[in-house]
Amino acid sequence: MVLYDSVGRACTLRVAALAGGVGAARFLTGLTRLIPQEDLTVIVNTGDDIDLFGLHISPDIDIVTYTLAGIVDEAKGWGIKGDTFHCLSQLKALGEDTWFNLGDQDLATHIYRTHRLNQGASLAQVTDEIRQHLGLKTKILPMSNDRFETRITTPNGSMHFEEYFVKRQCRDEFLGVEFVGQETAKPSPGVLEAIVEADLVVVCPSNPLVSIGTILAVEGIRAALKRTSACVVAVSPIVAGLAIKGPADKMLRGLGFEVSAFGVAGLYCDFLDSIVIDSQDAELKLRIEKLGLKVTVTNTVMKTLEDKVALAGAVLGSKGSL
Amino acid sequence: MVLYDSVGRACTLRVAALAGGVGAARFLTGLTRLIPQEDLTVIVNTGDDIDLFGLHISPDIDIVTYTLAGIVDEAKGWGIKGDTFHCLSQLKALGEDTWFNLGDQDLATHIYRTHRLNQGASLAQVTDEIRQHLGLKTKILPMSNDRFETRITTPNGSMHFEEYFVKRQCRDEFLGVEFVGQETAKPSPGVLEAIVEADLVVVCPSNPLVSIGTILAVEGIRAALKRTSACVVAVSPIVAGLAIKGPADKMLRGLGFEVSAFGVAGLYCDFLDSIVIDSQDAELKLRIEKLGLKVTVTNTVMKTLEDKVALAGAVLGSKGSL
Repeated sequence: MVLYDSVGRACTLRVAALAGGVGAARFLTGLTRLIPQEDLTVIVNTGDDIDLFGLHISPDIDIVTYTLAGIVDEAKGWGIKGDTFHCLSQLKALGEDTWFNLGDQDLATHIYRTHRLNQGASLAQVTDEIRQHLGLKTKILPMSNDRFETRITTPNGSMHFEEYFVKRQCRDEFLGVEFVGQETAKPSPGVLEAIVEADLVVVCPSNPLVSIGTILAVEGIRAALKRTSACVVAVSPIVAGLAIKGPADKMLRGLGFEVSAFGVAGLYCDFLDSIVIDSQDAELKLRIEKLGLKVTVTNTVMKTLEDKVALAGAVLGSKGSL
Repeated sequence: MVLYDSVGRACTLRVAALAGGVGAARFLTGLTRLIPQEDLTVIVNTGDDIDLFGLHISPDIDIVTYTLAGIVDEAKGWGIKGDTFHCLSQLKALGEDTWFNLGDQDLATHIYRTHRLNQGASLAQVTDEIRQHLGLKTKILPMSNDRFETRITTPNGSMHFEEYFVKRQCRDEFLGVEFVGQETAKPSPGVLEAIVEADLVVVCPSNPLVSIGTILAVEGIRAALKRTSACVVAVSPIVAGLAIKGPADKMLRGLGFEVSAFGVAGLYCDFLDSIVIDSQDAELKLRIEKLGLKVTVTNTVMKTLEDKVALAGAVLGSKGSL
C-alpha cells in the first residue's frame, strides 16, 4: 500500500487528476475511498461548457462535483439523484428547445454559476464556491477560466460537442474536432502548480481527444506534465477496442488512431510514466512497454464501488513506493 | 347586459384594465368569463419587478398571466398550480438567500424572460411571447419597459417593495414610498393607446399606492386616463376599512389617507367616472357621489368564481348602456 511507507508511517500523497465526465468521476469515487478528499485536486475539461437559455452549463465540472459530493444520479452518471424536470418541461411549453436535460436541482447550480459569472467571478471561483457549499473537500479546478469550446466537424457542419453528443446522439459522421479559443485560453490558477507539485498525476479514463485532449491543449499544461517529478499514470478508457461510454472509439478511428489502449498510450507517451489497461487487453502490454511505459493490467470496467476502489488501488500501486 | 345593445346586437367592448397582482387577477378571471379574452388589454404594475439570482422576476405580470392562462395556484394566488420547489431548495444549499418563493415551473418563466431580455428583447415583447406560448389571447402590457422600482421607506432603511412585503412580511413601520426611475420611465408601447381607445377602463382592486399608484406615476398614463372617452371604473380594494390582501390599509394610513373606499375614490377622482364599492361600505355612497362619481354598491369580496363573475358584471353594468 503506497499511502504508508515501508515502516508503516502515514504519508501524504498529493494527487492531481485530469478529468472529463462520467468515467473520470467514477474512477475518482474509488480514489477518494483510498486517499483523503483534501489531498486530491481535479483538473476538469471545460471544452463541453455551453450556454443554454442564458445559463452557463459546465457538464464535466458538474459531473465530477456531484459525484464526489455524493449527490450524483449514479444510474445516469450525471445530474442529481432523484431530480425532477419540471422547469425544463415548462421551458418547453414556452417554446424553448430542451434537448439538453437539466433537472430542477441541477438548474440551481447553473443559475448560481451564471449569476456569479455575471457578477464578475471566474469559473474557478464559482466552481470552488459550489464544491464548498456541497461540503466537498477535493479541489475542483476548471482547466481554464477562458472560453474554450470543443466543436465537432461533420458532413452536416460544425457543431458544439454537446450538440453532437447529446442532441444528435453522435449520429453524424465524425470528420474532426476543433478547439475554439485554444490559442488564448490560459490554465486556471493552480492548475500548473497542482501538476508540478503533485506526487501522482492521474489521467482519468476519459475521452483522450475531447476530454483529456482539451486539457492538454491549454497552454502550458502538457509542458507541466512533462516537467513534473510526479509519477504520471493514465487509465485507458478504451477496453477491447471500444469506449466504455461515449464516442471516443469513433473519434479515435476517425482521426486515424488505433482504437486501443496502445492508441491511447501513444497519445500520452510524451509525458506518461505508466498506464493501467484492462485485462481484456493484456496482449497489448508488450507493445505499450516498448513506448517506454510501465503497464499495469487489471479490471478497469467500473460497475460497483468495489471495482472503482480496486482500480484506484491499481493506479496507486502502479506508482510504486513513495 | 351591456355586451348587447338594446335590440340584441352583439357589441365589441374594448376593455383596458390597470392591474397589480392577486386582487386584479381574481377580478379579471371573472371579467374574461363575460368578454372575449382578446377584447381585454391588461396594463400591469412593474414596480415590484426584482432581480434575484440574476433572474428578472415580474411578480404582477406573472400573477396576471398565470391566472388568466388558467395555470395559477389559486390557493396562494401566485405561482403555478402543483409547482414544486426543488431548484430553490438547492439554491439554498448553495448558500443563496431564498426568501422569495420561486417554483420549478415558475422559474422557467424567469429563465426565459431573463434570457430574452439579455438578448435585447423588451419586457413588453417577452411578456407577449410568454402569454402567447401559454395560449392566452388577452394582451398583457407591462406599464413600462424601463426600470421603475417601488421602494418602501422604513425606520430600518429603504427597501425594495418585495423585501418589505415578502421577506419582512410588512413588519417594518411604513414611513413612505419612493418610485426609483419614475422620472425617466415611459409607458410601454400600446399602453396609452389601450387607454385612449378603450370603451371601458377598469382600475382593478389592487393597492392604490404601490400597484395602481405606480402605473399612474408613469409619464402620460394619468393624462391618458383623463383624456380617454372611455368610461373609467374602479373597484375599491378597501372593504370595511381593511385591505382584502396586502398592506394597502397600512400604507394609506401611513400617508394620511382615509382607509376606505372614499379614500380610494379620492386618489382616483380626477380621472374616474365610477367606482364599485362593497356592500359593507354602503354608507360611503353619498360621500363618494359628492366627489362627482357614480357609485355601485355590491359584494366585492371574491371567494368563488361566481363572486368574480358577479363583480365583473357589476363593473360592466356600472358603465351603463353602450
